Amino acid sequence: MPNRIVSYFNRIEPLTDKEKEAILDGIKVVQFKKGEFLIKAGQYLRQTYFVLEGCVRQYFIVDGIEKTTNFFVEDQWILSTGDPNDVKPSNFSLRFIENTLLVVGDEERSKALLSQFPKFQDLSRRAIQNEYDRQRELSELLITKTPEQRYSYILERQPGLIDRIPLYHLASYIGITPESLSRIRKRLAT
Amino acid sequence: MPNRIVSYFNRIEPLTDKEKEAILDGIKVVQFKKGEFLIKAGQYLRQTYFVLEGCVRQYFIVDGIEKTTNFFVEDQWILSTGDPNDVKPSNFSLRFIENTLLVVGDEERSKALLSQFPKFQDLSRRAIQNEYDRQRELSELLITKTPEQRYSYILERQPGLIDRIPLYHLASYIGITPESLSRIRKRLAT
Repeated sequence: MPNRIVSYFNRIEPLTDKEKEAILDGIKVVQFKKGEFLIKAGQYLRQTYFVLEGCVRQYFIVDGIEKTTNFFVEDQWILSTGDPNDVKPSNFSLRFIENTLLVVGDEERSKALLSQFPKFQDLSRRAIQNEYDRQRELSELLITKTPEQRYSYILERQPGLIDRIPLYHLASYIGITPESLSRIRKRLAT
Repeated sequence: MPNRIVSYFNRIEPLTDKEKEAILDGIKVVQFKKGEFLIKAGQYLRQTYFVLEGCVRQYFIVDGIEKTTNFFVEDQWILSTGDPNDVKPSNFSLRFIENTLLVVGDEERSKALLSQFPKFQDLSRRAIQNEYDRQRELSELLITKTPEQRYSYILERQPGLIDRIPLYHLASYIGITPESLSRIRKRLAT
């Protein structure tokens, strides 16, 4: 299973066997159960995580209601909140909606890898850029599309995601009520 | 003026005089006039830019209407669309709403700096992470706040921005009509 992170980097830029071994050597994988929290609002998200398997939901509480802002699934990174040297308390929570396996980023180990294998410098920048692109896409989706278009877009781009997420979380993510989402789904089904 | 990029990095992590000189040595600064385009939708955004002075508006055209999704001002980066080795045609336009000075990122020069000064590896990752945090904040703003709260938030966090941007662009960015924004402004003023 940890091989998934090797494949991820290898797709960005082909790795040598030595580089692959270096990634796997001493890798830290943690298992979480559905319903558990990675962090709750007010806590500190100090580390970086890579999702090997499972799904984490990000949400805020606004006027007592949970508003879902993101789902992290396989091959996505969960980045620390703010600068590693100046992490701020998180204003969102991260909760597992499936049993989940995460690679836990280790600052010391990353530094050693980066200095031993210069290729990883480029890889790590590109991994962050991938996440930036995803965030950029998400804000664009919210500004430029109607809820129905957003649903269709997610259906088209991440077809597996929709079957994995409870309808009310998905509705919150799209920015509508579960009732409106049901209507959209019925309309699209006919 | 190019010193602004030195100050930017220096705030993230203090630089030696040698490192400062290396950033400025051979730096490429380009001047744009208000109304000019950095790119139009369909073109390729291959380079990375740093805003020294001025303001760039990002927008999409949706059903014939311009929808504004971002403003880039001093100390912000404009990142290429997608992986540097696999840049996709942009689906948005970038147009200057003020006379603007940009540092143009040069891939070769960046690589030389990164290998000569290992500190820049960390700095460049943190610069991208800063932009990621901004994007994350923007999507959270759109999902968790009402238009009035969004306006207040921008007013509080980037007070200078609101005076620099025409009202109709600001309304589009917040996701409401200019008329609604006027009403919000009147309400907040009393």
